Amino acid sequence: MPGSTFGRVLTVTTFGESHGPAIGVVIDGTPPGIGLSVADIQKELDRRRPGQSAITSPRAEKDKVEVLSGVFDGLTTGTPIALLIRNEDKKSSDYDNLKDLFRPGHADWTYDAKYGVRDWRGSGRASGRETAARVAAGAVARKVLAARGATILGYSREIDGVRAARVDPAEIERNPARCPDPDAAPRMVERIEKARADGDSVGGIVEIVVSDCPPGLGDPVFDKLEALLSHGIMSVGAVRGVEIGAGFEAARMRGSTYNDEPYSDAGRMRTRTNNAGGIAGGISNGMEIVIRAAMRPPASISRPQRTLDSSGESVMVEIVGRHDPCIVPRAVPVLEAMTALVLADCLLVQAACRPL
Amino acid sequence: MPGSTFGRVLTVTTFGESHGPAIGVVIDGTPPGIGLSVADIQKELDRRRPGQSAITSPRAEKDKVEVLSGVFDGLTTGTPIALLIRNEDKKSSDYDNLKDLFRPGHADWTYDAKYGVRDWRGSGRASGRETAARVAAGAVARKVLAARGATILGYSREIDGVRAARVDPAEIERNPARCPDPDAAPRMVERIEKARADGDSVGGIVEIVVSDCPPGLGDPVFDKLEALLSHGIMSVGAVRGVEIGAGFEAARMRGSTYNDEPYSDAGRMRTRTNNAGGIAGGISNGMEIVIRAAMRPPASISRPQRTLDSSGESVMVEIVGRHDPCIVPRAVPVLEAMTALVLADCLLVQAACRPL
Amino acid sequence: MPGSTFGRVLTVTTFGESHGPAIGVVIDGTPPGIGLSVADIQKELDRRRPGQSAITSPRAEKDKVEVLSGVFDGLTTGTPIALLIRNEDKKSSDYDNLKDLFRPGHADWTYDAKYGVRDWRGSGRASGRETAARVAAGAVARKVLAARGATILGYSREIDGVRAARVDPAEIERNPARCPDPDAAPRMVERIEKARADGDSVGGIVEIVVSDCPPGLGDPVFDKLEALLSHGIMSVGAVRGVEIGAGFEAARMRGSTYNDEPYSDAGRMRTRTNNAGGIAGGISNGMEIVIRAAMRPPASISRPQRTLDSSGESVMVEIVGRHDPCIVPRAVPVLEAMTALVLADCLLVQAACRPL
Amino acid sequence: MPGSTFGRVLTVTTFGESHGPAIGVVIDGTPPGIGLSVADIQKELDRRRPGQSAITSPRAEKDKVEVLSGVFDGLTTGTPIALLIRNEDKKSSDYDNLKDLFRPGHADWTYDAKYGVRDWRGSGRASGRETAARVAAGAVARKVLAARGATILGYSREIDGVRAARVDPAEIERNPARCPDPDAAPRMVERIEKARADGDSVGGIVEIVVSDCPPGLGDPVFDKLEALLSHGIMSVGAVRGVEIGAGFEAARMRGSTYNDEPYSDAGRMRTRTNNAGGIAGGISNGMEIVIRAAMRPPASISRPQRTLDSSGESVMVEIVGRHDPCIVPRAVPVLEAMTALVLADCLLVQAACRPL
Repeated sequence: MPGSTFGRVLTVTTFGESHGPAIGVVIDGTPPGIGLSVADIQKELDRRRPGQSAITSPRAEKDKVEVLSGVFDGLTTGTPIALLIRNEDKKSSDYDNLKDLFRPGHADWTYDAKYGVRDWRGSGRASGRETAARVAAGAVARKVLAARGATILGYSREIDGVRAARVDPAEIERNPARCPDPDAAPRMVERIEKARADGDSVGGIVEIVVSDCPPGLGDPVFDKLEALLSHGIMSVGAVRGVEIGAGFEAARMRGSTYNDEPYSDAGRMRTRTNNAGGIAGGISNGMEIVIRAAMRPPASISRPQRTLDSSGESVMVEIVGRHDPCIVPRAVPVLEAMTALVLADCLLVQAACRPL
Repeated sequence: MPGSTFGRVLTVTTFGESHGPAIGVVIDGTPPGIGLSVADIQKELDRRRPGQSAITSPRAEKDKVEVLSGVFDGLTTGTPIALLIRNEDKKSSDYDNLKDLFRPGHADWTYDAKYGVRDWRGSGRASGRETAARVAAGAVARKVLAARGATILGYSREIDGVRAARVDPAEIERNPARCPDPDAAPRMVERIEKARADGDSVGGIVEIVVSDCPPGLGDPVFDKLEALLSHGIMSVGAVRGVEIGAGFEAARMRGSTYNDEPYSDAGRMRTRTNNAGGIAGGISNGMEIVIRAAMRPPASISRPQRTLDSSGESVMVEIVGRHDPCIVPRAVPVLEAMTALVLADCLLVQAACRPL
Repeated sequence: MPGSTFGRVLTVTTFGESHGPAIGVVIDGTPPGIGLSVADIQKELDRRRPGQSAITSPRAEKDKVEVLSGVFDGLTTGTPIALLIRNEDKKSSDYDNLKDLFRPGHADWTYDAKYGVRDWRGSGRASGRETAARVAAGAVARKVLAARGATILGYSREIDGVRAARVDPAEIERNPARCPDPDAAPRMVERIEKARADGDSVGGIVEIVVSDCPPGLGDPVFDKLEALLSHGIMSVGAVRGVEIGAGFEAARMRGSTYNDEPYSDAGRMRTRTNNAGGIAGGISNGMEIVIRAAMRPPASISRPQRTLDSSGESVMVEIVGRHDPCIVPRAVPVLEAMTALVLADCLLVQAACRPL
Repeated sequence: MPGSTFGRVLTVTTFGESHGPAIGVVIDGTPPGIGLSVADIQKELDRRRPGQSAITSPRAEKDKVEVLSGVFDGLTTGTPIALLIRNEDKKSSDYDNLKDLFRPGHADWTYDAKYGVRDWRGSGRASGRETAARVAAGAVARKVLAARGATILGYSREIDGVRAARVDPAEIERNPARCPDPDAAPRMVERIEKARADGDSVGGIVEIVVSDCPPGLGDPVFDKLEALLSHGIMSVGAVRGVEIGAGFEAARMRGSTYNDEPYSDAGRMRTRTNNAGGIAGGISNGMEIVIRAAMRPPASISRPQRTLDSSGESVMVEIVGRHDPCIVPRAVPVLEAMTALVLADCLLVQAACRPL
């Protein structure tokens, strides 16, 4: 219950601190008989790992994953899949001077207030490093969804105000910004480099699109699909807003425009527009599911900032360490993973709620 | 698990269909010894009920609540509190012609796809009427929070593009739009009346502010406070987006601007700005918690719309019945209730996670 | 979480105190499309209700159930089924003198220690009356199991040391002891009447047999089928022991005798003996599931007993009121209901855990 | 949900197969600030590990535990504690001939029926080896309980019909049978050796006593303390029955004898007898909690047995491998661990349910 477990049938439990021996995840509830290899998982981790490009943190973590259980002869067995990633490139000494003060924009003070004790090395449990475990689990969830034909695509829709005007899926992994628009991509990269040069950081918007999602996923009332997705997406550290389909724009539309008109496409219900973002009454309707997440600029900047130390005194802090000037490109696989975890879980829950 | 229960310690389970005998809620996990009267609950229900003003649905539901259990001699006993609200003003005949077709923007098709059977009268379980049960439960949660000094204030920040420029708490309940700005209020009402006259509907943005929330609420990783709040807020039918603090604006800020500077106010940690919206690392920091929810225009409009019937044929539908041209004002107490439920639950979870 | 909810997919939440306005239950997760009538539920409640025979409590509760939601046109809809039973024959004045003392064998002292406040009328929430809500929910679970061919049969295997030597299913409902052995039945009744005449009470053993249970129910490790069954059975007030198959006898057997020998019966795996009681490795194997529950004598006896009052003084108490000298016969439908709830839940969980 | 997680606040999730790379456990919800060392955990694992005496399996597992997270500077931090135990002495070739047949008394057939795929080496996930992870988690739970003064003592009350007539706590760890009676101990050992010589196995009864348990633990209705304990105890593979206090004997007692008489001991409520086994109305009353578990003889015996192969043919099987002729002595720390996990969880839940 205390927050490190997610999901109802497909349940993932992550563990680990940024500078402890290892991080990892246990995934229970995977259906048996699904093909799963180390490469399936490593591929996703490689998209998230630091040091993958010039605009990310240079922390040299290879994030090599070890499968400890739940897979036999290349197939899932239905028992818990435990995945382990050792922490290798720790420079805890970078944090020695931060032990007794509360960095602005970080969770130092709130962890202290809540627990009275904390692992102050590299943000400990509050580190974004924990999301590697989610990405590993998400790789398993993607295999579950793939068995039903659903695919998930994420990209940087906007960085520091630069917006992708179009979406070319083939372009996304070709540029370090994970921008789907080849014209906007170099401008996004430029903004990130400028922020780093300024000792500052920038934010942006990630967009996730789910294609060929089966209808019927999501549950009435409290566990509507958009509610579960928002829970998952908002649980990623830097996310400050989430929207589905038309999102905040819907607040300015009239019903006659917002309502998507249904039609029959070879016997299959479709809608001519998709303001609902693929979800009606909390349940997927078979159209593309569209999610956007607003990500704040990273809290760690190298400029001097005023803050408090643990005795309540006002002090100046300059944060050294190896940080990302913009987390949006590396957040793409993390938000894809959360989307996959929610949908795969809903798929399994739905199996339990069907007519007998 | 199938969606009608919310919360971890303070768990609420709602039941009931719009045109069935009754709706209601069971609240388990309320601490014992809290004063609770029928009036405490009825007061909140009266803020949500239809027919409260000229700009809401005229369905004449008094929404009188009956307390069935869990309260003895005016005090909660720690056992489940069951609350019952009978459905009185049902006009199911309004829906006879909708039985075999799927209304645009409604959940008719997805419920049919998921369950193969549905109560088609007044949207059945998918009706917004279910939220009355949440408001009743929220009244209990508010009493729990009040015992720790926290208060929740909600209002219409924006309706059909008209934005409240300032927040005067005393103004909110004085106008039917629940607008906190006396200048904007009549313009909001005007827009709603115009939409109704056009046989159309409009959306808007609700803002919720929590004052004096104790620090330490919310749990690391998946159950961050903003994740739980987003789950709760997004589970309300018409919500399509949610943001915390600076929200989507944060995506366009630099770290040096976004980071809130801590200072000591008589020994208590405060920040000079509140872009974080009162939450750092998923845990409340004692500053005001600020949430905004984007609400789409209601799906039920009286204009003719093209849709499909259950045999897959294209048909025109005109929706009669007693609907709201704008749900924002009535959604205010619902979103306050969801906020109260999340925070009260976190307060109790926190009691279980403290140092021994 | 605080104890009034049971189940993972098929979740039941009971509410209500013995002398409050009503008791009831919300059942979420019932598959849609199952035929369900008030009579299906009332039939089971009538087997549990007080006053059904000369050897039960004369409290005249008709226990008429009202279905508030979740059923439409005679079919379950997949949404929560709320069931309400009003308390009618309350004689709270019987309890006036018990308000300030702790009855031996009752939960008065522990509720006081835990909550600091309690509804002392008729044991409040701790009353066995709460089990009527379970029986109502169990009737729904039985319909789910029946759709898969499984049936549940319960009876009094032993009362006050008198043991049923054989099991004739047709005999069970013919005698007030619910004894399956026509020779033992009158002796059981005699013992109960003797206990009442003595102002005392007696215990016994209920046996539950599940026939034609599908294989594959129950989950490895912590949610083994026998673990879930024990949880459910032991949650009924007077139960002090539970065993599966050979049970405590297994502790005195050798492996060569205990191991059930498998054989093929027209292609279906069967075992020649059934010491395992239909469960291997925590998972049903298709053989009969056999459960026994030891029930203590009821705590309410009319003899004078020494106890403490709320100020810690030693006092004598004589309990008046309308009590059962033996709860075993009325416990049969309650334990059947708990068995049905566990198995129906496992059936639905299993649907979510199968190969895709 | 699928069975590998236990607990509500203190939640443990185990993973791993007998012959996979490792087994382990993630413990979430431990209160922060509790002293915890590797030695605290290793000590309990050493009591469970194979090869500890002449009467256990000679599989040479050292069961060395590694702490991967959740502990910093010797104190728990409130974040998940992950514990890892590598499998070292695997002889999977012992199982080659068992791949295509179903061993009597084992879970081979039911796993196959449920999952359609299984790790057949050393029983895979169904192996008793999984309980090492529980013992490791239990060591953490014991530290939580110790902070409130509660202690747990387990021992073999009976093996193959030989019963311990008295309980000398100092004696328990002095003999390989974990028998608390120095007279009965050698006879128990003799019986176990005799069974091994016969190629057979024997069962017995474990008794667990909890001293100085705080009152107020356990929750009304479905999560009564005895129900949670039964769930936990019955989830250990070889357990076939569980009883609390007077247990099955209570079924033959009269109320006037069974009811424990309360008295005041220096202002503290105590009872003169303890038939209730420390639990009234599902809530601990401060008296000793007494639990007994019946354990069947191990399924693996070296005698030839008739069974079925995966094609449904009748075959003879002789099980080689390194097995325990009696699991009772090694089960003692496992059942202590389950008891500790349940009680520590209830302690934390209780903190969330107290008056504010």
